Amino acid sequence: MRIVLLGTGNLATRLGLALHAKKIEIIQVFGRSISDGIHLSKQLECSFTSLKHEIKLDADLYFLAVTEEAIPEILVNSPIKNQLVVHTSGSVPMEILSAFSNNYGVFYPLQTLSKQREVDFSTIPVCIEASSQDNLEKLYELANLISGQVFHIDSAKRLQLHLAAVFVCNFVNHLYSIGEHLLQDQNLDFDLLKPLILETALKVMTFPPEEVQTGPAMRGNQSIMDLHFKMLEQFPEWQNIYKLISQDIKKSQQ
Amino acid sequence: MRIVLLGTGNLATRLGLALHAKKIEIIQVFGRSISDGIHLSKQLECSFTSLKHEIKLDADLYFLAVTEEAIPEILVNSPIKNQLVVHTSGSVPMEILSAFSNNYGVFYPLQTLSKQREVDFSTIPVCIEASSQDNLEKLYELANLISGQVFHIDSAKRLQLHLAAVFVCNFVNHLYSIGEHLLQDQNLDFDLLKPLILETALKVMTFPPEEVQTGPAMRGNQSIMDLHFKMLEQFPEWQNIYKLISQDIKKSQQ
Repeated sequence: MRIVLLGTGNLATRLGLALHAKKIEIIQVFGRSISDGIHLSKQLECSFTSLKHEIKLDADLYFLAVTEEAIPEILVNSPIKNQLVVHTSGSVPMEILSAFSNNYGVFYPLQTLSKQREVDFSTIPVCIEASSQDNLEKLYELANLISGQVFHIDSAKRLQLHLAAVFVCNFVNHLYSIGEHLLQDQNLDFDLLKPLILETALKVMTFPPEEVQTGPAMRGNQSIMDLHFKMLEQFPEWQNIYKLISQDIKKSQQ
Repeated sequence: MRIVLLGTGNLATRLGLALHAKKIEIIQVFGRSISDGIHLSKQLECSFTSLKHEIKLDADLYFLAVTEEAIPEILVNSPIKNQLVVHTSGSVPMEILSAFSNNYGVFYPLQTLSKQREVDFSTIPVCIEASSQDNLEKLYELANLISGQVFHIDSAKRLQLHLAAVFVCNFVNHLYSIGEHLLQDQNLDFDLLKPLILETALKVMTFPPEEVQTGPAMRGNQSIMDLHFKMLEQFPEWQNIYKLISQDIKKSQQ
């Protein structure tokens, strides 16, 4: 299988490297950022272009590893016609691709990916969907080469997964960030919180989150919640977050 | 050092077992719950009482491993007078103990502890504080036996740590719980989110959270945020949490 990788960001980088490590041939990288594109294409030992009309047409699969808005932008007026095109987004319905090709699908790795951090792709759940059984099988084979966990999931379910991922990843990371700022405020090192952060995540690998909920809101300790609320006076947004989540914890314990 | 352990909950259990494993002598467990107390005292190979006047007076240290409100409740009218008494709470000032003894301190393990889950105490930061240098040294020696990370932290800083811990542990766990419910709603398995949850925690072991923030709010993708918001129509509390945290992420990226 010969692949053209459209995109040069976090996902394109991690996906490209995972495919390359499994000796899957990436023949070209396409992207707007010339420096990122040249850097990635060197790692993947392939050519690079930032010009749409130079996209190679003899690939078996076109991977759109770009942001949601960039998906139609790239496909409009592109030379890609009826080749198999897949996007990698959690929130975009597969059918958006039907305007551009008869062969299309989705290849959504459910993970937070960064250029600067290596990740073991074999542990990442990959959610696939395709316009035909034939295309689905092609995607399944490919996904199976780089991940041990491949799931056939439709667009509605994928969107719900993406929403849940925003809560357990993006929002969680922001709470880590608030924690870090609160410590900096008192000249305390973020390292102090790391064992707690890790244990909180490890706990839900084996127990349902509700069963291992701890803290003042769970115990209904109003005096401590009032004290914390007052301590956040300088940060009204964090006060609101504190209040809302505490109320929701109390409610879920009823 | 001979210890009386006051409390039979999550923290009392985990702390008692960690001390016991290091051959530190626990001579008695005290608690309101007779079944929990008998169970714990068996594990610690010591006696148990639920009667205040039966608390043994020949210990070197009295560990109050109980909820915040129970600290004064236990000490009022107890036979403990000038022995070294420490509480284990993040949010209660040390000085509350001065009404009950001349020798007091705090021993706060910064971790989420559950009876059902074993934990490696040696990785837990223990924050200590004491009424005198002599008492501080006693607590330091003890803490050092069970944890590799002991810090002298005053009550104001400890309270701020506790507040930060609520964000990165208690609130984070509740977001995991929301994620689980959103998946259940579409008959999807929580297991799908586990690699994401773990990677999100592992990332901040080496990178500052702000640097590795991802997701629609970080990218300023309003159309996806509007879509997610609409999907949460049945859950107005989660809509509010979604909105508040997304706004705060956007603000922090400016």
